[in-house]
Amino acid sequence: MTIILGDNQYGKAETHLVRVTRNGESHEIKDLVVSIALAGDFEASHIAGDNTKVVPTDTQKNTVFAFAKEAPVGESEEFGIRLARHFAAGFESVRRARVTIEEHEWSRVGVGGRPHPHAFASAGAEKRLAMVTSTKDAAWVVSGLRDLVLLKSTGSEFWGYPKDRYTTLEETRDRVLSTGVFARWRCGRLDVDWAMAFTRARTALIEAFAAKHSLALQQTLYAMGSAALEACSDIAEIRLSLTNRHHFAVDLRPFGLDNENEVFYASDRPYGLIEGTVTRDDAPEPGLAW
Amino acid sequence: MTIILGDNQYGKAETHLVRVTRNGESHEIKDLVVSIALAGDFEASHIAGDNTKVVPTDTQKNTVFAFAKEAPVGESEEFGIRLARHFAAGFESVRRARVTIEEHEWSRVGVGGRPHPHAFASAGAEKRLAMVTSTKDAAWVVSGLRDLVLLKSTGSEFWGYPKDRYTTLEETRDRVLSTGVFARWRCGRLDVDWAMAFTRARTALIEAFAAKHSLALQQTLYAMGSAALEACSDIAEIRLSLTNRHHFAVDLRPFGLDNENEVFYASDRPYGLIEGTVTRDDAPEPGLAW
Amino acid sequence: MTIILGDNQYGKAETHLVRVTRNGESHEIKDLVVSIALAGDFEASHIAGDNTKVVPTDTQKNTVFAFAKEAPVGESEEFGIRLARHFAAGFESVRRARVTIEEHEWSRVGVGGRPHPHAFASAGAEKRLAMVTSTKDAAWVVSGLRDLVLLKSTGSEFWGYPKDRYTTLEETRDRVLSTGVFARWRCGRLDVDWAMAFTRARTALIEAFAAKHSLALQQTLYAMGSAALEACSDIAEIRLSLTNRHHFAVDLRPFGLDNENEVFYASDRPYGLIEGTVTRDDAPEPGLAW
Amino acid sequence: MTIILGDNQYGKAETHLVRVTRNGESHEIKDLVVSIALAGDFEASHIAGDNTKVVPTDTQKNTVFAFAKEAPVGESEEFGIRLARHFAAGFESVRRARVTIEEHEWSRVGVGGRPHPHAFASAGAEKRLAMVTSTKDAAWVVSGLRDLVLLKSTGSEFWGYPKDRYTTLEETRDRVLSTGVFARWRCGRLDVDWAMAFTRARTALIEAFAAKHSLALQQTLYAMGSAALEACSDIAEIRLSLTNRHHFAVDLRPFGLDNENEVFYASDRPYGLIEGTVTRDDAPEPGLAW
Repeated sequence: MTIILGDNQYGKAETHLVRVTRNGESHEIKDLVVSIALAGDFEASHIAGDNTKVVPTDTQKNTVFAFAKEAPVGESEEFGIRLARHFAAGFESVRRARVTIEEHEWSRVGVGGRPHPHAFASAGAEKRLAMVTSTKDAAWVVSGLRDLVLLKSTGSEFWGYPKDRYTTLEETRDRVLSTGVFARWRCGRLDVDWAMAFTRARTALIEAFAAKHSLALQQTLYAMGSAALEACSDIAEIRLSLTNRHHFAVDLRPFGLDNENEVFYASDRPYGLIEGTVTRDDAPEPGLAW
Repeated sequence: MTIILGDNQYGKAETHLVRVTRNGESHEIKDLVVSIALAGDFEASHIAGDNTKVVPTDTQKNTVFAFAKEAPVGESEEFGIRLARHFAAGFESVRRARVTIEEHEWSRVGVGGRPHPHAFASAGAEKRLAMVTSTKDAAWVVSGLRDLVLLKSTGSEFWGYPKDRYTTLEETRDRVLSTGVFARWRCGRLDVDWAMAFTRARTALIEAFAAKHSLALQQTLYAMGSAALEACSDIAEIRLSLTNRHHFAVDLRPFGLDNENEVFYASDRPYGLIEGTVTRDDAPEPGLAW
Repeated sequence: MTIILGDNQYGKAETHLVRVTRNGESHEIKDLVVSIALAGDFEASHIAGDNTKVVPTDTQKNTVFAFAKEAPVGESEEFGIRLARHFAAGFESVRRARVTIEEHEWSRVGVGGRPHPHAFASAGAEKRLAMVTSTKDAAWVVSGLRDLVLLKSTGSEFWGYPKDRYTTLEETRDRVLSTGVFARWRCGRLDVDWAMAFTRARTALIEAFAAKHSLALQQTLYAMGSAALEACSDIAEIRLSLTNRHHFAVDLRPFGLDNENEVFYASDRPYGLIEGTVTRDDAPEPGLAW
Repeated sequence: MTIILGDNQYGKAETHLVRVTRNGESHEIKDLVVSIALAGDFEASHIAGDNTKVVPTDTQKNTVFAFAKEAPVGESEEFGIRLARHFAAGFESVRRARVTIEEHEWSRVGVGGRPHPHAFASAGAEKRLAMVTSTKDAAWVVSGLRDLVLLKSTGSEFWGYPKDRYTTLEETRDRVLSTGVFARWRCGRLDVDWAMAFTRARTALIEAFAAKHSLALQQTLYAMGSAALEACSDIAEIRLSLTNRHHFAVDLRPFGLDNENEVFYASDRPYGLIEGTVTRDDAPEPGLAW
């Protein structure tokens, strides 16, 4: 028996960059958390502690900050492409660079009804995502979002499921449906209008959740994924991970009260987790995208 | 030497209630996390395990859910007053009941440009707060918010401070100022339009942060507190706790680049914490409000 | 009506210091998160942005690091006394300095059964606490701990409580009792063997929790507080905040199974929160300790 | 273009089970968070909301609790095998069941130097992991741990790396090395003494971290993985994900002080992330283990 090194990668995680763009009085800000992972010819570092080919993670961090100055950051996907290509192309030892970006949105503050030139408020907990993978020859982009939380107070049913000896759940024709959305979609090309694709996909996801009468969160997932594909022709495939955030109607009968789906206890754990991929039948090969 | 029992209280914390109000097709939702703390004649439980006077925390939880059905929840302050009075008035042993409510906001989803009757999206991480304290005779209300996060990309200076042997900070005439706001304000009366007071105070806090040219976060705090008092005559006193979320301009000179306050590293820890109270000179006595 | 500034303080929060002491080959480490809050004559900064008297929070951070080099850190209480006195005595404008320290424990790693000279493993989530408050003339020390989590699988009852129309809880003679302990105690003197006092108080809290047959978490709280006072004569007063982490026996009857307090669902929220002070009748005045 | 459903799975996540085993006076506890994910023939639910084949996640939760009563839980791997096989074998529609268990450890409390029969203290933040994947014919087991945090105050170097225009990091022959360990290992068989395998692997990981003089965290990773394989012949492959928790020596020269690697600032973000697999050259095929 011999012990051998298998797959490996390394990099700097969660470099928190805030980039201010000053157009005279009026400022714009981009708030990005950037993580980098490099794979390649790093066996000597593992076996012998020989770092001749190891680009320091500190250098990776510096590169994020320098790149933010050297050219406009643009959309997260574009910044990710620049960074991933830099590491894949610039270092012989790097076979594959992956850059993952979480973007935090800020909204401009209004003062007396007019937008303020340089004051902003955090726009919430939702994050926009971009993940770019680059080799020396090619690159792949995955976009997405996480922590979009949605709720329908009706328009959701759950019945017709199999019963076994451990089943106690009552069938229902009316329940609260609430989900935390983690969505990632792959575009088959690199020359995409990323901002427009994001807006279209996000809007489609939300509208499908709202509009689809739901017999199962799986059905809602499929409707959401399909809507994103239909709304944006650049998207080849979408992967959705939806938590089912249970809201239990409280039994008020002991207090002489009816609860006609008005009073709910929102539970933290356990929760359902529904995951699925929706794709086009003619989607291009994913390559190293995921 | 004798060992004695001092101040004490107990209750159920973080009951998570979601209340759906069905106006025909169109629904409204309130999402509240309710914590209750009772103080009073509970010495026997501590000394002897005699629970004759101890209202179970499970009953407190049930009461939250039942009250949400028995009458409209209304504003969080109103729901808190109902609950706090119930415990203070309804149980001989309870000398003082405190109900603290964190409200999570949801915004109605639009589909095809029209508001959907029963679909909602989480409105972000910011929470609205209400804290009601009631004795058998009187009640006090504190309102507030937390996790409102603001940022100014310019319009902030910091200089003129004392230097000692441990000082290395450079004075600056231009920095990013970002803060997480925890604000609580006390109204001197109980017959307040709570929703309007909240909106006015919140707007005043945000606009003052944006509009005030800042020489210190302390100065901004005072401006924010003053603005809230001026915007809402019902507010007698406001307490602000502002984190100073440091954004450090990255030194890009090693890379042959200037950084004219464009590229920042956002740091998690340590952070500044600036706390202060702004009040009217003729404010009524706080009583047990805090 | 005039608007005025009330109580205020400011400082640097959560400076994370790791201090390595090298005794030849054998190292010791202290891992402290230090927060500083200064109160005093800071009105000019609030009103006019005049920082002449404002010791920068950056200087406070530097002072923490420099002090860790200039003399042995010692116990957290001693380090806190040094720092708090420095700010209160060294700056005319500072009327009261408060230093709060959270200590994270590491345990030495063994290799082949022998303690390693410089390798350590994190000892868990529990934190040791020290809070020192100093004026120009006097100082007060509070010690404590948080996130000590305890559980008894029997030896706990809850019955005899009042019932009203919202009560559904069944009385029980046997339940799981689990609590997260937040404890702070005040010593009446400054020349205390802090390490020994901590060990005695912590041991007393744990042993009392375990040994006391519980009719109410309030009763357990009082027993824990009393035990700490009895175990350590330096402690004048102890304040306890105990969460009641509910473990519900799962109803297994639908599956044809009995549950004789063997299978529990551990719930996150809501939870009970029981708070109380236990003190000596001849305890010295607390002054500014809390 | 046609839209089609790709890979999918669903299940109940984070069912928090506490199992008390009563051996007369002396109790044992197991504290497990169990997550289940089923893959199979669930297309009708996605496309048409037809739940005929969808085992409700509520039933999955019930099954966890019932199984904890029907037979001894045993090691997490054993409980996972029972559960995963139940779903894979018991439901025609389930092609593959995966059960992931996080175990929280408790240590028995001592009172007066003797172990207490039914009182326990939380043993820390570290979690033991088991992940079992089962089809109708076969099963695979991955064991592991997360949130084991280690630190060496010396015995770590980093130098010899490539420099480019974005490199500012100074080479060092002495630094603090601290890591949060996420480790998962695959055994090639199912008849393993899981408790012994866990103890051996964990001990090997910790001792290798301590004993290996480190020229790179990659080298330490490989040494840790190799040590686990050597310590336990049942382990075919181990995957390690190690954070590099940076500790920066504070520059004390402005204060006239030398810092000979004694005073460190512990940074939260960014951090390094080093990931690698160490395996035997004759390891059996992983199948669906991961």
